[in-house]
Amino acid sequence: MYYTDKLLQFPVRVEKPSPIFAKALQQAIGGVEGEIRVCLQYFFQGWGARGDSKYRDLLLNTATEEIAHIEMLATAVALNLENAPLSLKEDVAADAAGGSVLNGMDMRHVLSTSLAALPTDANGVPFDCSHVYASGNLAADMFANITAEATGRKLAFSLWNMTDDPGMKEMLSYLIARDTFHQNQFMAVVDELGGLQANLPVPNSIPPEAELQEFSYQQLGFNRDGSPPPQGRWSAGPSPDGKGEFTSRPMEPLGGEPNLAPPRPGGGAQTQQMAASDNGGGLLHKAAEAVKDSLS
Amino acid sequence: MYYTDKLLQFPVRVEKPSPIFAKALQQAIGGVEGEIRVCLQYFFQGWGARGDSKYRDLLLNTATEEIAHIEMLATAVALNLENAPLSLKEDVAADAAGGSVLNGMDMRHVLSTSLAALPTDANGVPFDCSHVYASGNLAADMFANITAEATGRKLAFSLWNMTDDPGMKEMLSYLIARDTFHQNQFMAVVDELGGLQANLPVPNSIPPEAELQEFSYQQLGFNRDGSPPPQGRWSAGPSPDGKGEFTSRPMEPLGGEPNLAPPRPGGGAQTQQMAASDNGGGLLHKAAEAVKDSLS
Amino acid sequence: MYYTDKLLQFPVRVEKPSPIFAKALQQAIGGVEGEIRVCLQYFFQGWGARGDSKYRDLLLNTATEEIAHIEMLATAVALNLENAPLSLKEDVAADAAGGSVLNGMDMRHVLSTSLAALPTDANGVPFDCSHVYASGNLAADMFANITAEATGRKLAFSLWNMTDDPGMKEMLSYLIARDTFHQNQFMAVVDELGGLQANLPVPNSIPPEAELQEFSYQQLGFNRDGSPPPQGRWSAGPSPDGKGEFTSRPMEPLGGEPNLAPPRPGGGAQTQQMAASDNGGGLLHKAAEAVKDSLS
Amino acid sequence: MYYTDKLLQFPVRVEKPSPIFAKALQQAIGGVEGEIRVCLQYFFQGWGARGDSKYRDLLLNTATEEIAHIEMLATAVALNLENAPLSLKEDVAADAAGGSVLNGMDMRHVLSTSLAALPTDANGVPFDCSHVYASGNLAADMFANITAEATGRKLAFSLWNMTDDPGMKEMLSYLIARDTFHQNQFMAVVDELGGLQANLPVPNSIPPEAELQEFSYQQLGFNRDGSPPPQGRWSAGPSPDGKGEFTSRPMEPLGGEPNLAPPRPGGGAQTQQMAASDNGGGLLHKAAEAVKDSLS
Amino acid sequence: MYYTDKLLQFPVRVEKPSPIFAKALQQAIGGVEGEIRVCLQYFFQGWGARGDSKYRDLLLNTATEEIAHIEMLATAVALNLENAPLSLKEDVAADAAGGSVLNGMDMRHVLSTSLAALPTDANGVPFDCSHVYASGNLAADMFANITAEATGRKLAFSLWNMTDDPGMKEMLSYLIARDTFHQNQFMAVVDELGGLQANLPVPNSIPPEAELQEFSYQQLGFNRDGSPPPQGRWSAGPSPDGKGEFTSRPMEPLGGEPNLAPPRPGGGAQTQQMAASDNGGGLLHKAAEAVKDSLS
Amino acid sequence: MYYTDKLLQFPVRVEKPSPIFAKALQQAIGGVEGEIRVCLQYFFQGWGARGDSKYRDLLLNTATEEIAHIEMLATAVALNLENAPLSLKEDVAADAAGGSVLNGMDMRHVLSTSLAALPTDANGVPFDCSHVYASGNLAADMFANITAEATGRKLAFSLWNMTDDPGMKEMLSYLIARDTFHQNQFMAVVDELGGLQANLPVPNSIPPEAELQEFSYQQLGFNRDGSPPPQGRWSAGPSPDGKGEFTSRPMEPLGGEPNLAPPRPGGGAQTQQMAASDNGGGLLHKAAEAVKDSLS
Repeated sequence: MYYTDKLLQFPVRVEKPSPIFAKALQQAIGGVEGEIRVCLQYFFQGWGARGDSKYRDLLLNTATEEIAHIEMLATAVALNLENAPLSLKEDVAADAAGGSVLNGMDMRHVLSTSLAALPTDANGVPFDCSHVYASGNLAADMFANITAEATGRKLAFSLWNMTDDPGMKEMLSYLIARDTFHQNQFMAVVDELGGLQANLPVPNSIPPEAELQEFSYQQLGFNRDGSPPPQGRWSAGPSPDGKGEFTSRPMEPLGGEPNLAPPRPGGGAQTQQMAASDNGGGLLHKAAEAVKDSLS
Repeated sequence: MYYTDKLLQFPVRVEKPSPIFAKALQQAIGGVEGEIRVCLQYFFQGWGARGDSKYRDLLLNTATEEIAHIEMLATAVALNLENAPLSLKEDVAADAAGGSVLNGMDMRHVLSTSLAALPTDANGVPFDCSHVYASGNLAADMFANITAEATGRKLAFSLWNMTDDPGMKEMLSYLIARDTFHQNQFMAVVDELGGLQANLPVPNSIPPEAELQEFSYQQLGFNRDGSPPPQGRWSAGPSPDGKGEFTSRPMEPLGGEPNLAPPRPGGGAQTQQMAASDNGGGLLHKAAEAVKDSLS
Repeated sequence: MYYTDKLLQFPVRVEKPSPIFAKALQQAIGGVEGEIRVCLQYFFQGWGARGDSKYRDLLLNTATEEIAHIEMLATAVALNLENAPLSLKEDVAADAAGGSVLNGMDMRHVLSTSLAALPTDANGVPFDCSHVYASGNLAADMFANITAEATGRKLAFSLWNMTDDPGMKEMLSYLIARDTFHQNQFMAVVDELGGLQANLPVPNSIPPEAELQEFSYQQLGFNRDGSPPPQGRWSAGPSPDGKGEFTSRPMEPLGGEPNLAPPRPGGGAQTQQMAASDNGGGLLHKAAEAVKDSLS
Repeated sequence: MYYTDKLLQFPVRVEKPSPIFAKALQQAIGGVEGEIRVCLQYFFQGWGARGDSKYRDLLLNTATEEIAHIEMLATAVALNLENAPLSLKEDVAADAAGGSVLNGMDMRHVLSTSLAALPTDANGVPFDCSHVYASGNLAADMFANITAEATGRKLAFSLWNMTDDPGMKEMLSYLIARDTFHQNQFMAVVDELGGLQANLPVPNSIPPEAELQEFSYQQLGFNRDGSPPPQGRWSAGPSPDGKGEFTSRPMEPLGGEPNLAPPRPGGGAQTQQMAASDNGGGLLHKAAEAVKDSLS
Repeated sequence: MYYTDKLLQFPVRVEKPSPIFAKALQQAIGGVEGEIRVCLQYFFQGWGARGDSKYRDLLLNTATEEIAHIEMLATAVALNLENAPLSLKEDVAADAAGGSVLNGMDMRHVLSTSLAALPTDANGVPFDCSHVYASGNLAADMFANITAEATGRKLAFSLWNMTDDPGMKEMLSYLIARDTFHQNQFMAVVDELGGLQANLPVPNSIPPEAELQEFSYQQLGFNRDGSPPPQGRWSAGPSPDGKGEFTSRPMEPLGGEPNLAPPRPGGGAQTQQMAASDNGGGLLHKAAEAVKDSLS
Repeated sequence: MYYTDKLLQFPVRVEKPSPIFAKALQQAIGGVEGEIRVCLQYFFQGWGARGDSKYRDLLLNTATEEIAHIEMLATAVALNLENAPLSLKEDVAADAAGGSVLNGMDMRHVLSTSLAALPTDANGVPFDCSHVYASGNLAADMFANITAEATGRKLAFSLWNMTDDPGMKEMLSYLIARDTFHQNQFMAVVDELGGLQANLPVPNSIPPEAELQEFSYQQLGFNRDGSPPPQGRWSAGPSPDGKGEFTSRPMEPLGGEPNLAPPRPGGGAQTQQMAASDNGGGLLHKAAEAVKDSLS
């Protein structure tokens, strides 16, 4: 169960409201790198967590923090919109150079919300929950979370860089710090579970008979001319999971041409497809001719 | 530029076609853990890669392999559908127990494709390209790729476990092996870039003034009763990025109550909202009364 | 800011786990009538609320309760999945009648989550945040909320009716009661704002010059034969908003035929479209002939 | 069955074409508050209506009107685009201040439609039919419709406010009037069905045993400090549905901690999760160590 | 403007209601091959049509017919659902073989609509209006319409084949006939515009300088081994547009390797990417070492 | 299986980078008329092709070319972004007229990708794979492909027209030429299959008993006043498929009013709906009164 105290986790101040920056901030709310995503991701990972309940608690603790981050950003969007133009006339009045504010802002901030945040990204695309990665595998989820915090931190930095409003810069530098912590937190879970070698390849519970192991540490090359693929740490030497030795070679196909059965009657294909299949491709022209004949 | 030889990377054999399993296989084609996703993700990461071109080449090499994986799975779906019922009558004939094949299969395999694969997941939800993570930050992208290969390998194992068709089991065990390699490959890139400590927190190019560093290694607790958050590797000791020392404490709000300006005239709010804002909440009832009076 | 105590708002017990019912429950999590929707809707309404802060607090209080409802339902899904078949073989073993469990369950509960809830509806369609209605107009938002609670209560009742597990029935009857309260709560806000007449038509802040008032209380009929449209409370007598008197009449068009300019050169239309527009439709055939001639 | 006469319901005139305003108008076509939505919503409610056919007829009558509204708006978009720049050069020529028209317009109006409307919102997001609410419960549907007409009227007013083209202002003031009527019409249906008390809580056909009635009129508080939730019309006195008396109290959890079974073998979790579950969390470290040992 | 008479275009009779078939019918309502799509597609093509108004009228006439087709199918879905099980118990009672009806039907038909149609496809995926193709080019739109009617007719035939209910078979055979007409109608428009040669390639208004014509009739081969691509009517002889002569050859790349600038400071890339770019790839290892050193 | 050589199919040069044009180019990558769509469409058509394998090979050959087109466009986007402003300050510095670059560009090019392409359209809407049309019917697929190449060529021409960068103009004129070839190629397949008459109506394998043939060549009119529908090539004379003679007449409904059963108890409708249904509409008021009475 959850509780609130109506206070912000960190101060949200806007000195120079900018509807353009409000649009940019939306990416951190409803973008795939944003806070709705991490919030719901950690909640669903936590609610579905099986195994040691410590990790469930950690995930719910972090998810609960993330609600406060959405709240901070939604407040920041609303404050940045407080001088937004409500009409083309107002826009031109504010900016003799041609109404560029209305051009650059998210019009739905005027049309749909009356100057408040939307659960969408910077292009107005609504967040959709297919981005909530919660696989039931704790290690896979930790990598998903580190990824989310890494792209989130990159985004927060791009926003920090974009604005020169001191209040906004401060709020973003707080969020950057929290993303630093969360990256470290989720990597620390991997450490506590035994580290990279104990956990890779994920899942580490796949029995040997389910894996064609001769292909597990082999870099395959797909250069047209059969030249070796790009060489590096991944082409030779021990694999990071500590369980194999890298090799590298150009790939040649191991399977033949796929061979599908002809279309079945009643399936809605063209008759020519069925004729060709029944008789071999050589008879196609004849079949088509027959169809043509029957029309004249 | 790209080339083909029309051959499968690995044999695709189906001994006992199962339209139900065809539906399950769709998750590996068009699901968020599936092959269209990794294929396009590596392509877009490669095409947008800035910096050492070796990584661009590696990403495009891997993306090119993934096309062949979609091809294998699409072939597997088509082969599993070859005895699918085209009508309710046919279904009941095949299964006296009540037409359970048609119930469990993806009907669009009959209605929309004439017994071939769709670029959708196991529930028929089409893949959408918002899942193509390509941040321009090489380390963030590597974590995204390890995540994709980890959830993909989990999925392939679940499919391996679900079927007892030997051809399908063999194909899946090949894909499991490739996912093992790709997890190792992308972790090897991190190694080559200096390892976890050199790369965390991602991005590692954020200048110190952009981060409120006192909050960067601090576990914050959101328990209602102020008790400490779940303790572990992340609450004390050196952080995995090697740049800080973990501490842990319950969080108290640092910001006050958010304070938005009243609705502006012309914005489409209710008059009561504007009245309340102008005069303070205490006057709300009076405002509402006035509106009411004006109606009688 | 938000807090948690890791406890469920109400007990979640499952006596007879049913993966089919787990699928049905998903509608109450990620469906458009579900709990993610109301949770985010009340949060975004609250975070963007302008005017008397009492309503902001009420909305955030209710949103905070809704997190706990998602949590209950996610737990219920996980518990219903605990005996789900992981393979076609296991499925047939459990149900000699043909593997109907695997047919009817959401396969992603096995393939993607390892037996836990997804943020999707009963058909596996992910929730998307375009359903978060937060207009900035308090009355409009209240009607949106009553709607959400009405369809949510209808859904909870359909689920209650579908299952005969006593634990599930009890949990659902609790949620039904909460939906009763929330419908009343949001209607009480309308009351406090002066009632229906003070608030309709929404927004009540539109100035008279923005409305062609002769059409504001007129039922228009669109029967082909010009007969009167369906009569009722809405065709005569005072309007519910207390501001007009209903009339009713068949509609005849007030505007003429739309008249768009011809396609501009460089816009990518067919030449015949441009010719026809320049010269009048009568010349079209000639223009087409000319094109044809120029080819021979 | 349906018929047309090719005439507009109301005149659509544009004196000063504005591609920027064309973009804004899109919200009224394909936005969630727009006309495609209400049109399809009333059609699907009507086509599925069970009970007195009068309401079916009323819904289809209104849906038929809404087609004409989409038509008016699509015409308005096309007319506003007739001077849109087709190239960056043309754009700069028209506006020496830097090509702000092309910046602010929807580029797909040039790229995808050759200067005509799209079935998308102001941000180019296509309308999706999950927004068609048709629950089968007449009262729930009426509230959904009032909501749609309320947000639609707010949107039409914001558009009226944004433009100073007299033709556009007149068209919008007509649509505002129609939204006034439709709000009243749908509320009149509720009246005819017995009014709010006869219909709330929706559905009014839920039997008493399906509801834990002690929680049906109880405001629950989720303040962290246990202080009372925001007081108002909803905390004391008779409920608007006339069936209860409001009370108010802070919530304490009634359920315990959720307790999920450990991950099953073959499900793709990490071995550490299974070990921890089997043996209790205390043994986790040991399990991880064992995995680690097995690698060296 | 539009009108209705509340009558069905063609009788809709269901003798043996089947919730499974109701699910299949959904594809013809909300699938990409379905009736909502063609209805909206013809409306938007008509409302945006520039040039001879005859085609606008033809498109609106056809769109108006399509509303009646959605209506017929929505009615058919509702009638097929009239004996659907509302509970697991009812389901098992009706079908001792294990509740296969509830398994195979769309649960949202019970949960969300109370036994009526949804604007979704057979998998419950809502129709989204990105499928409304209306390019502003009349010939392109005609091909889009022929495609839609071709896939729609294939779908109607698959449905006809699936059911053995005589009422449903008759309704579907009517829709199949209408799709025959509409394919012919749209091809007749192409004929009236001068036929294939006058219209291909679409658009036929592109000036010669906008096309690198040496590549316009050249089949390019992408076989890995440089062997010729599949030969046929398209590799030699006159092109169907009557404007060229086909040739065929293997493709070799005409462009070099892409060469993107290094990441800019402040963009959020890893420092190693910037170092590598500045100094050439050879220095990467050194850069990574430096980062590593600075940590110790 | 697939291979690469890392070279571009055609040179991609940008002389005057324009972030605004980068946004426009996105439509050709991730728009419904774009290259991801055709690439995946031809792949899925090829992988599912049944019948003469020549067409499978042709489709895969073309799909393989399309990857190179996405690559060219993604490179073009990245090159156009190389001088994009990373901050509001930088934007204003570059353009004294008010920061119009940042206004007009896709902000996600800065926020999400660090100046590289996204798999989205010009409005930032991600491509979704429901647009991959692959019906299993070869003729239907050919028309879908001609449509895609026609709208794609129209788009490429609009882009060619929009820019005056010579490198971009050249690249686009190459793509325009390829679209000319592909339109011809797919029409040549129709020719090889016997031409239009042999293939229309699609599918040509539907048996006569599945079609109510009296309606197959009949233009139906839906004018309100019963006047004839728009006359043309489609109203009289032989049909393009060579199998019928066109006639034309106003439509009158052939079906009666739809008649759905009343709502079932337990389905969640309002009691008034059930009452009205049981007793006939006339008793509705009485039923509503009864409900009302029971409340007082």
